[in-house]
Formats: sequence, structure tokens, C-alpha cells
Amino acid sequence: MIEPQRTPATSVLKVSAHSNPNSVAGALAGVLRERASAELQAIGAGATNQAVKAIAIARSYLVASSIDLVCVPEFTDVEIEGNVRTAIRLLVERRMLPPVPVPPAVR
Amino acid sequence: MIEPQRTPATSVLKVSAHSNPNSVAGALAGVLRERASAELQAIGAGATNQAVKAIAIARSYLVASSIDLVCVPEFTDVEIEGNVRTAIRLLVERRMLPPVPVPPAVR
Repeated sequence: MIEPQRTPATSVLKVSAHSNPNSVAGALAGVLRERASAELQAIGAGATNQAVKAIAIARSYLVASSIDLVCVPEFTDVEIEGNVRTAIRLLVERRMLPPVPVPPAVR
Repeated sequence: MIEPQRTPATSVLKVSAHSNPNSVAGALAGVLRERASAELQAIGAGATNQAVKAIAIARSYLVASSIDLVCVPEFTDVEIEGNVRTAIRLLVERRMLPPVPVPPAVR
């Protein structure tokens, strides 16, 4: 499940163990084409794994736009149905790559 | 299990699902006090989760040294006992924080 929560500062994508990493990557790449950062939130090993895979995939989606991604992991507490759980928050930030060279044939 | 493999360029820490994130974080922080980057390698959701937690913990260990960490995830193939497995490689890089202010009382 991906539940985007857009705020002016950043964009939070909640990732679960059943999330499709390609779908999360597509959403993440879409956000990061327009914004400087996004946030993935995951609870549990399966969810964190899908989130990390999504970032790796999103990097490949953004190469053509000369955008690379770095992520900054931290712990955060979230309340779910009255219970506090420890989640992993992955702040994902853009960093620019050198422009992709245009092949001579299409110049 | 943590198996450091030091090379001139970087340092690879192999993380498993049974690795203690605090121990990995300590090893990672130790490497990144001396080097610009390190690499965590994880196979499977449990291992990737421990690796991400270790990076989050290592960030807290390095605050006093004015060092923050970012990580860059990517897929990589590794051969284990003749079988090729897809691993997650987390390249961990330093970035400097503003210096921690010295409290007035100890100046």
C-alpha cells in the first residue's frame, strides 16, 4: 500500500511489506522530479526492505533526468490504532548527476 | 555476523539478519571516522533491515564528531557457494554537520 501524504515541505509515502517496489519507485521518482526531498515510512523488516529496493529502482528511473538519490535513515515513533510503533523513516534527497551525454548520432 | 573487508577505496561490512545493529553501527562509525565512505552488503529483508537500522544508529554515534551519513542503495549480484544471489549494497557516505556548539559553562 502506498499512501501519499503531501505537505508543502515534503511528501510521505508509507510502504508496507506488500508494497510493490516498482510502484513505490515510480511514485518516488515522480515526487522527486518536482521536489527536493521525499520521505518513505516503513514499519518492520519486510516494509523497510521494500522501501530500500524502491529507492534503488527510483535511482535508475531518474538517471535520464540527471538526478541521483541519497537517503538518510532515522527511527521515528508512529501511533497505529492507539499503539506506538517504531518505524524507519527514510528521507530521500536529490543530488544532481553530470548531464547524460547525447550520443553523436542524434546530435 | 560482520565481516569487514578493507580495501584502499572503501570498506565492506556484510550484514545478516542476525547481525546486531548496534555492533554494525559501531563498526560503521569507526570506519567513517577515518574514511569518506563505507559499504554495507545485505541479502534478504532481515539483513537489509538490520543494515538500515545500523546506519540510523551510526548517525547518532557520529553527531558529536559533526558527521552525518547518507546512503545510496543499489542492487548487486553476489556469488555464494556457486549460486548468484541479488544483494542490496548500501554505499554510506559522510557529510559534515555544523560544529556542535560548546556550552558556555565549559568555555
